[in-house]
Amino acid sequence: MTSDRGPGRYKVACVQFAPVIGDLDGNLATIATKVRAAHAAGASLVVLPELAPSGYVFESDEELAALAGPVPEGKAAAFLVALAMELGIHLVSGIAEAANGRVYNAALLAGPGGFIGGYRKLHLWDRETLFFAPGDLGLPVYDTPLGKIGIAVCYDGWFPETFRTLADAGAEIVCVPTNWVPMPSQDPDTEAMANTLHKAAAHSNGLYIACADRVGVERGQPFIGQSLILGPNGWPLAGPAHRSEPETLIAEVDIGAIERVRQINAHNHVHADRRRDVYR
Amino acid sequence: MTSDRGPGRYKVACVQFAPVIGDLDGNLATIATKVRAAHAAGASLVVLPELAPSGYVFESDEELAALAGPVPEGKAAAFLVALAMELGIHLVSGIAEAANGRVYNAALLAGPGGFIGGYRKLHLWDRETLFFAPGDLGLPVYDTPLGKIGIAVCYDGWFPETFRTLADAGAEIVCVPTNWVPMPSQDPDTEAMANTLHKAAAHSNGLYIACADRVGVERGQPFIGQSLILGPNGWPLAGPAHRSEPETLIAEVDIGAIERVRQINAHNHVHADRRRDVYR
Repeated sequence: MTSDRGPGRYKVACVQFAPVIGDLDGNLATIATKVRAAHAAGASLVVLPELAPSGYVFESDEELAALAGPVPEGKAAAFLVALAMELGIHLVSGIAEAANGRVYNAALLAGPGGFIGGYRKLHLWDRETLFFAPGDLGLPVYDTPLGKIGIAVCYDGWFPETFRTLADAGAEIVCVPTNWVPMPSQDPDTEAMANTLHKAAAHSNGLYIACADRVGVERGQPFIGQSLILGPNGWPLAGPAHRSEPETLIAEVDIGAIERVRQINAHNHVHADRRRDVYR
Repeated sequence: MTSDRGPGRYKVACVQFAPVIGDLDGNLATIATKVRAAHAAGASLVVLPELAPSGYVFESDEELAALAGPVPEGKAAAFLVALAMELGIHLVSGIAEAANGRVYNAALLAGPGGFIGGYRKLHLWDRETLFFAPGDLGLPVYDTPLGKIGIAVCYDGWFPETFRTLADAGAEIVCVPTNWVPMPSQDPDTEAMANTLHKAAAHSNGLYIACADRVGVERGQPFIGQSLILGPNGWPLAGPAHRSEPETLIAEVDIGAIERVRQINAHNHVHADRRRDVYR
C-alpha cells in the first residue's frame, strides 16, 4: 500500500552485517548507512539483526546495562525511530531494552509515524539466560500499512508454536532479527538448520518470513550469516546470504498472495486442515 | 535392545518402491522381497510407504473398497503381520483399512509377537477427502522393545502439532509411510519441502523420523521419492533416496542418544524451553 506496484506489494530488506560489541555509536552509524542504502534500493520494510546496536556477547551485567536503554526513549531506540521517520519506511531491529529494572533481548518496530511497538524475546539462548529477562509481551502482531507484522528473535524460531501463534493472531509477515550461531553437529557446508526451520515455518503457516542475521566472530563466538527472505510457500525470495560477509537482501513481497498460497488445492488449506480436536 | 550393539541401537530401513494400483498380490510379493532384503541387511524396523499394498490413486469408492480390509484380519494386514512375525522384526506399513462401514488411509505396526496397533491418517490430502474417512484414533505411541514408536502419514507431516503431540506422548521414533507428491511451485531440482518439513520436525522435537515414500507415476499422478531417515538433531542419517527409482535406505539409530540431543547446551532443552504460557 506504499508503492505504485499495487496494494500489499513492496520490497523488504534484510541487512546482514557485523555489529561491534560495545560500540553503540559506531553500530548506529553503520546501521544508518546500510538502511539508507536499502531505502535507496526501494525497500519499504527493513529488518536488522538481533542486538544490532550493541553487539551480543556480554561479559557482565554492567556492560550490558551500559548498552541497554528504554524503548523508545533510549539512545539506540530513538535513533532507529528517527531514521524510520526520516526515510518514511518501516524498520524492525533487535535492541537491548532496559525496563522494570531488568534488561530484555528485545526488538522494536518503527514506521513513518514513529514508534509502533516492541517485542521481547521469549526463548533465551544459552548464556542469554544469564543476562536477559525472558520476554513478557507475548507475541504481538502490529497492523500496519505494510500488512500485519509479527516479530520473533533467533531461538524463538526453533519453536513451531512461535509462528503458529503469530499466524493465528493474523500475522502476514514475520520479521526475525537474529544472531544465529553454529548448531551442535551442523555440517558447515550444508544448509543451516536455522534456514530449514524457517522454510518449514513459512510453508506450514503461509507466512512471509524475513530473517536478518549477523556475521563475524565476537569474543570467540562465530555467527553464521545466511540471512533469508521466504515467501508464504516456504521458498526463498532472496538468500541465503553469505555465511561470513555483510550483505543486504532485498525481495518483493505480495501480502495479497498469502491466502491463495494457504489454499494449497481445492481440498486443502494449511490452517483450516488442522486437527485441533487431536493435538495437545 | 534387539541387537548386540547395545540397548536402543538398531537398524531401521525405509523401503521406497512403486506400488501398482489395484495389484494387491503383486504389491505384497514385492513388499515381501524388499522387506526380506532389508532384514538380511540387518534392519530390525522396516517402514513401507502409504497405501503400499493397494496403490494410491483410486477412481471410485468401489475400487477402494475391494482393496481395503480390516486391520489386522484382512488379507494385506494379515500378510504384513505374518511377515513381521516370521522375520522377527518390527514393521510399519500404510494400508487401506475398512472399519465402521468406512475406509481409512491407515497404517499398522506389527512386531515379532504379531499385530501391535494401528493409526488412521488425521490430515487427508486433496482427493483423499473424497474416498477416506478422517482419522479417529488420535496419535498413538506404541511402547516396543525398539523404543516408543509413533506413526504419521504424508500430509500429517505438514502440521508441526503432529510431531509435538507425538513427542509429548513419549515418541522416540516416528515412522512415516508416505506418498509425497510435488508441491505447488516446488522447483524439482531443490530439496523437497517434505524433506525440509521433516528435518525441522526432527530437530525441533529431538525425534528420529523415518519416512518411506513411493516413486512412480500412477494414473497421471507423479510421486517424488526422496525417502529420508533423520536423527534427533534433524540431520539425515540416510537419504534422501532417489527421486524416481526404488531404493531401500538403512540407518542405525540410537534411542539412548535422544535425551542428550534434546539438551542442546547447558541452558537449553528443546522441550523444556517451550513457553506454554504464551502459545495459543
